[in-house]
Amino acid sequence: MARINSNYLKLPGSYLFSGIAKKVQAYKEANPDADIIRLGIGDVTRPLTDSVLNALHDATDEMGKEETFKGYAPDLGYEFLRSAIAENDYAARGCDIAADEIFVSDGAKSDCGNIQEIFDVNNRIAVCDPVYPVYVDSNVMAGRTGEYVEATGKFKNVIYMPCTVENGFVPELPKEVPDMIYLCFPNNPTGEVITKDRLQVWVDYALKNKAVIFYDSAYEAYIRDENVPHSIYECDGARKCAIEFRSFSKTAGFTGLRLGYTVVPKDLEIDGVKLHSLWARRHGTKFNGAPYIVQRAGEAIYTDEGKREVRALVDYYMNNASVIYNGLKDAGYEVYGGKNAPYMWLRTPDDMLSWEFFDYLLGKAQVVGTPGVGFGPCGEHFFRLTAFGNADRTKEAVERIVKL
Amino acid sequence: MARINSNYLKLPGSYLFSGIAKKVQAYKEANPDADIIRLGIGDVTRPLTDSVLNALHDATDEMGKEETFKGYAPDLGYEFLRSAIAENDYAARGCDIAADEIFVSDGAKSDCGNIQEIFDVNNRIAVCDPVYPVYVDSNVMAGRTGEYVEATGKFKNVIYMPCTVENGFVPELPKEVPDMIYLCFPNNPTGEVITKDRLQVWVDYALKNKAVIFYDSAYEAYIRDENVPHSIYECDGARKCAIEFRSFSKTAGFTGLRLGYTVVPKDLEIDGVKLHSLWARRHGTKFNGAPYIVQRAGEAIYTDEGKREVRALVDYYMNNASVIYNGLKDAGYEVYGGKNAPYMWLRTPDDMLSWEFFDYLLGKAQVVGTPGVGFGPCGEHFFRLTAFGNADRTKEAVERIVKL
Repeated sequence: MARINSNYLKLPGSYLFSGIAKKVQAYKEANPDADIIRLGIGDVTRPLTDSVLNALHDATDEMGKEETFKGYAPDLGYEFLRSAIAENDYAARGCDIAADEIFVSDGAKSDCGNIQEIFDVNNRIAVCDPVYPVYVDSNVMAGRTGEYVEATGKFKNVIYMPCTVENGFVPELPKEVPDMIYLCFPNNPTGEVITKDRLQVWVDYALKNKAVIFYDSAYEAYIRDENVPHSIYECDGARKCAIEFRSFSKTAGFTGLRLGYTVVPKDLEIDGVKLHSLWARRHGTKFNGAPYIVQRAGEAIYTDEGKREVRALVDYYMNNASVIYNGLKDAGYEVYGGKNAPYMWLRTPDDMLSWEFFDYLLGKAQVVGTPGVGFGPCGEHFFRLTAFGNADRTKEAVERIVKL
Repeated sequence: MARINSNYLKLPGSYLFSGIAKKVQAYKEANPDADIIRLGIGDVTRPLTDSVLNALHDATDEMGKEETFKGYAPDLGYEFLRSAIAENDYAARGCDIAADEIFVSDGAKSDCGNIQEIFDVNNRIAVCDPVYPVYVDSNVMAGRTGEYVEATGKFKNVIYMPCTVENGFVPELPKEVPDMIYLCFPNNPTGEVITKDRLQVWVDYALKNKAVIFYDSAYEAYIRDENVPHSIYECDGARKCAIEFRSFSKTAGFTGLRLGYTVVPKDLEIDGVKLHSLWARRHGTKFNGAPYIVQRAGEAIYTDEGKREVRALVDYYMNNASVIYNGLKDAGYEVYGGKNAPYMWLRTPDDMLSWEFFDYLLGKAQVVGTPGVGFGPCGEHFFRLTAFGNADRTKEAVERIVKL
């Protein structure tokens, strides 16, 4: 008699963004004429750039001729893309990462969710609070977390590391020692960053405690400040303790195209076993590569023209970030993030609960954001807005909020 | 201190096809002028068809305009594709499957590998022997099997169901009752099929024992005989006990484009929990949808023109199948499969071991196939050849083998 994986039953409610989508849908049905502006889910809105489109068309043409047709991609990604990544995202910043340490995938969400599979189910995880839900939920599903406690909004066997105004949204080293540490900078949801010195402290801590850091740098393209690291491999020793996740989603508007990658350095070993081998085995068994045409599209962002286009895309969204940040700040809101990231993290007015503020904003201004508590208990009384909207609509959303 | 998932260490050697690739690479380096013909890995070689190419180009153009740009796909797939699947692959064959019971993915391999995650780790699995390695390996990684026993070529705690010449390569009902049963018809690797009556026996068995059947019908497009079911949902009661996997890879040559889907009927419940909800949660948390442009390409194969093209594609490969089947048969080989499937399963001559025959064929005829033992102990002394090559090259491969 088959049994289900009962760990799934520990998950409260639905996945955050599915939940928001349902609420918005219900509002829309009740108010069919409402002109809703979505600054909730972190989804991009600008069209793909010319280099990317040309690459897609060219690669599609290749797929239409027997001589240039491509079947199964190499398990770990095409060499042309892995080399472009190693050169442009790592060597160019002085990081020692080889092409064959890069695993091409269909996006950072999948990799962030799947990476825990190669670790023991009894490892203890540490996450920031607030946190991107995928890190926690994927560990809940795997049975690594214990029960959910309604009263605290936390899972029993997870180390939550508060990220607050007081610590500048960078967690302190935890008192209990974790085995697997999830860090994300520029941070989702707070939009705050970490300096290289503070990140080095984390790397040293992981090395000392033989913990592994999962470093999600999906938003590194939005970094403007000089002293903010783009990669954890800018820190000494990170090759021996850190796995890094990157995505083309926000960098080049690939949310609908699906492309990302994970770096597992060959120096990363536990009890003599290379994590690189384990991830290669997992990738080869449970994944079949990203589409050839999409990998060619990814390669295109590393050309001179592609780089210019990506910069313009990021500038467009960062202009939105300024509009939101400054508009709300001027109106008296307490706002964080937005300087090196496409996310603004604001304190709800009048001590409102974050779902209360969600309903208020949707009802009064027809603006959709993300309730902070959806990212963890420390997110209560906070609210996330994203810079990924259309510029005019973003301006209008800010005007509507300010008017309230 | 982090620990690895030690279940990975139970896996012997490398993933079968990675292993073959390495052997061929080594041979190529030693014999740079060798003219190798690959009939090993089940990868297609014909270019994408016109409808598919047009859909890709059109969808790419949509992605280049703000008004028609698409970001994140709906978690479970675009409605247009799910409806086309429900109508053409199910309703047209009298199967009662709704569009919202279909989960679009990046391929059947991922889904076949991931589906076990929503089941209890103590469930017992049953697999055919020989078997597509992903079913077993994904369960090994999850800790659902015991150790690998070198002497038998089997994992402890797995129920192996021999598929032999004697039983027509359709397994008998196992003596020990499994919780999760993997079936694949048309079968990979044997190329043999199951009749509707015999499949009904399996459905009845699963219902009686509250087991779940994972039915992989990735090769259904190759079925020619009338009495062979294309879907397990052609059997009574299957909505209450079966999950089905399909792929665009072999049907329409999408191995490099990546598109598949999984059907989880809403009637499928365990202890009052719908597996549909669990898989939706898994999909929503650890996957981010197939690319929009690829989903549009998938939709194109259901147009009249698309259907004609797909039929021609399948005919092309099935002609190869005849060439291999008849050529080897005429030369005195004992050959199975190939009538309703793109795989031929032949007994090695002179009682050769299947890896021995692999080396022999590569060395003497420069033809690459897949050693049967790579699919399980009952595959020893067998060898798989695929029909997915170029027609002229396939003919030449057969001539070379016959000459030996």
